[in-house]
Amino acid sequence: MTTINKKRRLGRNVSIVGAGMSAFGAFKEKDSRDLFSEAFQEMMGHMDQGIDIEDIECGYIGNYSSDLFEHQGHTAPIMADWLGMTPVPMTRIENACASSGSALREGVMAIASGMYDIVLVGGVEKMTNLATDQVTDVLASAADGLYEVPSGLTFPGIFGALAKAHMDRYETNLDHLLKVAIKNHHNGALNPKAQFNVTIQSLMERRKSRAQERGQPVPDWQTDMDFLNDAQANPWIAWPLRLYDCAPITDGGSCVLLVASEIAGNFTDKPIHIAGIGQATGRPLHDAEELTSLSSAKAAAAQAYEMAGVTPQDINLAEVHDCFTIAEIIATEDLGFFAPGEGPRAVDEGRTARTGDHPINTSGGLKAKGHPVGASGVAQVIEIFHQLRGEAGERQVPNANLEFGLTHNVGGTGGTCVVNILRRG
Amino acid sequence: MTTINKKRRLGRNVSIVGAGMSAFGAFKEKDSRDLFSEAFQEMMGHMDQGIDIEDIECGYIGNYSSDLFEHQGHTAPIMADWLGMTPVPMTRIENACASSGSALREGVMAIASGMYDIVLVGGVEKMTNLATDQVTDVLASAADGLYEVPSGLTFPGIFGALAKAHMDRYETNLDHLLKVAIKNHHNGALNPKAQFNVTIQSLMERRKSRAQERGQPVPDWQTDMDFLNDAQANPWIAWPLRLYDCAPITDGGSCVLLVASEIAGNFTDKPIHIAGIGQATGRPLHDAEELTSLSSAKAAAAQAYEMAGVTPQDINLAEVHDCFTIAEIIATEDLGFFAPGEGPRAVDEGRTARTGDHPINTSGGLKAKGHPVGASGVAQVIEIFHQLRGEAGERQVPNANLEFGLTHNVGGTGGTCVVNILRRG
Repeated sequence: MTTINKKRRLGRNVSIVGAGMSAFGAFKEKDSRDLFSEAFQEMMGHMDQGIDIEDIECGYIGNYSSDLFEHQGHTAPIMADWLGMTPVPMTRIENACASSGSALREGVMAIASGMYDIVLVGGVEKMTNLATDQVTDVLASAADGLYEVPSGLTFPGIFGALAKAHMDRYETNLDHLLKVAIKNHHNGALNPKAQFNVTIQSLMERRKSRAQERGQPVPDWQTDMDFLNDAQANPWIAWPLRLYDCAPITDGGSCVLLVASEIAGNFTDKPIHIAGIGQATGRPLHDAEELTSLSSAKAAAAQAYEMAGVTPQDINLAEVHDCFTIAEIIATEDLGFFAPGEGPRAVDEGRTARTGDHPINTSGGLKAKGHPVGASGVAQVIEIFHQLRGEAGERQVPNANLEFGLTHNVGGTGGTCVVNILRRG
Repeated sequence: MTTINKKRRLGRNVSIVGAGMSAFGAFKEKDSRDLFSEAFQEMMGHMDQGIDIEDIECGYIGNYSSDLFEHQGHTAPIMADWLGMTPVPMTRIENACASSGSALREGVMAIASGMYDIVLVGGVEKMTNLATDQVTDVLASAADGLYEVPSGLTFPGIFGALAKAHMDRYETNLDHLLKVAIKNHHNGALNPKAQFNVTIQSLMERRKSRAQERGQPVPDWQTDMDFLNDAQANPWIAWPLRLYDCAPITDGGSCVLLVASEIAGNFTDKPIHIAGIGQATGRPLHDAEELTSLSSAKAAAAQAYEMAGVTPQDINLAEVHDCFTIAEIIATEDLGFFAPGEGPRAVDEGRTARTGDHPINTSGGLKAKGHPVGASGVAQVIEIFHQLRGEAGERQVPNANLEFGLTHNVGGTGGTCVVNILRRG
């Protein structure tokens, strides 16, 4: 493909000046409107120098399938009405679990085009009103219905196949996968918005205490790894993936405010700039060149790096799409942080921990923070926004010189990948 | 709202240099991929100076609900794969029946942003695989599920209410509505791609011949108006709307190729330029200021006129969103072609006929051409493209000096409206 490697530049620079997200979790009483409003109100209430809602000129909502989850289409104008923003144009962007990653790209281009100066970009998904088997079915409709779905695989099976391919080709083993879960829960425990705001260690202790309280035999787990290796506590879902290798089903909303960089100073002294954006499509898995990598991720990353003028080694931290533990390992290789097959060793060596040289998913990732699919891409951006501004609280990366952060947001089986690179102002 | 009336300008000009659409109709054997491929192949085969598929850098697909119609989400990358375009980024845009109107706007801004020079914009919907009551239900999910749907109205009922309001307030009568249908079928009869490529008069004659062949009593219809006033031939759907007041359920795909205006000459000697784009949201109907007008249409039109630097009287022809006959009448008033309440008289006087001073829906409109909801916005643009280029064949508007054409694409009950103004190069 000749055009994909072209040099791409925005006509105007774009910055992020505000961010908000709802709590992520399972909320019986909340629908999409509630979740998105919660995110929006948090953002509006935390703008460094305030903003009038009437100054927002345009909006984008990433959402995978309010159609199937809530039997509600045409979600964007409904949100505009709910937030009191009519007649401002609002558009829904759908690229499966990469919907709000793509929405951010549309918001960036809308400003760069010259049409707008101030644009709202968010994402939302309400998932827990359906039973787990129904959610699995809705998510499966993000795979190719002609090629992938008839194989009988749903997403745990698909990512199980990628994990098996990685294990066959490289030194990857089951412990590597579990260590990704342990790390991300460790980060999630420091994130008050996370669905699993708890370490695996604490989950284990809770289970032991509960057994004791009930007078049941107390399991003989000494470490979190013992717990995760117990097939009763951590059952197989789709070999080699177990329950704790999978991101949860989540309700949540997220949003950021984008502005033309030349006016960012009107809103904050600490704007975060869009340095590079990349998006690419990939072929269904039966037609993929290999199963140990996503071609769309490599293409999107190449675009974003080229545009930002940086290399993978310039990236100080990243939020990557860990819908399953193996997906995080593959992402760190596709993004060039580690060579192909070296991702697992990096996990072993703690390089992807919050205190490592390549911190990955300091928010807890999709695994612990939760994965309301349409909201996840912007939620990743929000974590980088706070980290680069040095306001991530207990989970702040211990590096005073953070400059570049990256987000990696995957849709389906890699049909879409969006990579954004953010830079501290 | 302070910002909606702001002057908006694109950083770079954008032109349309190619267009293609599938036949519109009910096709048992075709799914979304087939329909969109058909549109794409027609476009590629009719580029004035050819194009290499590898030169297309980015794509947008307007689609309302492949989720509910085909149980397939993540439609955009599937189309990229199906057309052989991976890894080019492709994004689905959803704004109900205005999805591809919105997709065009995203494509325009993507080029104006400086990121891309050559962008594919299309729309597709596969609807006829569901039964009519199911389609009605899917479409109803484009209304507000909290406010509008619980009233029990589906879209024919909603637009019936608008028609009644218009009749109560102005001199509008049932004949005015029927005359819109007659006009649009008259135009559709000249459009080989139309689902109803036939006049009402011909439909009437066919029914009479069939009765005669079967030895049944031959109805005593002398004119198309007799036929449409016969409640057997044209049953009531939702008073005051009858069957022939409603657009049909349709399968179809459509696409156009957008390029930066400075390179349009590489593709054609007859580019059509984007002169103005406007999009706006509107509140649900219970909260609307009035039922005889759509506030989103007026806001979107004001933006598009301002940007194009023209007035309604400069527009030589328009494709408007006639999902129901009353919707066309209201559109011609909202767009400022006629004063509020004057739309019906303009129909009476033939001013909106192909030969009138304000030709409306020369393609046959949604009413006769068909309404594959996600494809309709771009299909409107295609009609204007061909008319401004003087290549609309038998249905060419008899005006040698066509300069400006307009499209008006509505989502839901006016939750979204997109207005585009095109200019001959």
